[in-house]
Amino acid sequence: MNSFSVSTKGHCDMLDITPQVSKAVSQAGVMDGLATVFVAGSTAGVTTVEYEPGLVSDVKDAFERIAPQAAGYAHDSRWGDGNGYAHVRSSLLGCSLSVPIADGELTLGTWQQIVLIDFDNRPRQRKIVVQVLGERSGGEVDSGKR
Amino acid sequence: MNSFSVSTKGHCDMLDITPQVSKAVSQAGVMDGLATVFVAGSTAGVTTVEYEPGLVSDVKDAFERIAPQAAGYAHDSRWGDGNGYAHVRSSLLGCSLSVPIADGELTLGTWQQIVLIDFDNRPRQRKIVVQVLGERSGGEVDSGKR
Amino acid sequence: MNSFSVSTKGHCDMLDITPQVSKAVSQAGVMDGLATVFVAGSTAGVTTVEYEPGLVSDVKDAFERIAPQAAGYAHDSRWGDGNGYAHVRSSLLGCSLSVPIADGELTLGTWQQIVLIDFDNRPRQRKIVVQVLGERSGGEVDSGKR
Repeated sequence: MNSFSVSTKGHCDMLDITPQVSKAVSQAGVMDGLATVFVAGSTAGVTTVEYEPGLVSDVKDAFERIAPQAAGYAHDSRWGDGNGYAHVRSSLLGCSLSVPIADGELTLGTWQQIVLIDFDNRPRQRKIVVQVLGERSGGEVDSGKR
Repeated sequence: MNSFSVSTKGHCDMLDITPQVSKAVSQAGVMDGLATVFVAGSTAGVTTVEYEPGLVSDVKDAFERIAPQAAGYAHDSRWGDGNGYAHVRSSLLGCSLSVPIADGELTLGTWQQIVLIDFDNRPRQRKIVVQVLGERSGGEVDSGKR
Repeated sequence: MNSFSVSTKGHCDMLDITPQVSKAVSQAGVMDGLATVFVAGSTAGVTTVEYEPGLVSDVKDAFERIAPQAAGYAHDSRWGDGNGYAHVRSSLLGCSLSVPIADGELTLGTWQQIVLIDFDNRPRQRKIVVQVLGERSGGEVDSGKR
């Protein structure tokens, strides 16, 4: 288990967190296994994307189509938070992502990055948990664990 | 591996299943690991949300926008089930969710609950599987459990 | 860890990959665990569906509603790939899926298949990784591993 924090600007801010996840995988020393990336909170999500400015904008547009900020949300009527759209987007996208590990590396495609999307209507500090499960390769590493 | 059943009303019924998942994690005795929640079936899904009546309604509205009940579905033309929209919504949301476990607890946010959404057009009995993987911490903890 | 390749037609081509995933689970010999299915690449995704021609068409229609091919994408303006919609759909659907294993079998519903959807605008060869974690049941099976 490993975790790190990032600062976001909210408003569909999309951050490439692949370097931090890769580092967590290296530190875990797992050669063959699974890395699960999880963001705690109900107004953010994680997914993969080819991380380039065009798609950062396109994904934002897609969420505005699916759950428009101005659609009118019962959450906002009840609580006055003004971020009902952010909650709905988070539920639709999902808060976790699992990526297999082979030879100690994430099996991502060349143009595929792991991203955090913060849908909230204000800057936030987000904690990301990386849970790495699997086997270390080789008797020496195993011995070290006992 | 653990499982439990819940009764739903269908029609986008959203149930907070966090207590049952937490219980499964406790029973597994895993201190550092991963809990995967899975619903068998092709007209339901799992995700996380701040579970309050406003968002229960808002998420339902979002699915009506994404896959409207009255859009016309080839599934219904072929099979006459009338629940084509429920199948599509299930495929879009996904049937599984993985949450890391730290210190024996799910690493959920304070306002983040695990929910089952039943999209079907009738009440259903749903079986939820919770698969817990990971390590029990230390021999002493193991002993304490026996 | 196991992997296999499939040929797709692109354009929302949906392939039932349950047989290949089941085979990977059998080969891993895990009786109680978790199978994670992952597709590398940023223009495809995995999910579950009742795999029949009606829903294959309905799911395609849903993605055309969510991220229309002709909506206009900044990705296309920058890179001229013409597949901005495919990237966005992939990010929304997700590239991985985890299914618990009980008694050596995937805990899927009767009418629930694991599918790859290729959103790209051309035929592709896709590599699917299946990571199986968990316990083989019984000492004898374990002995057989050494």
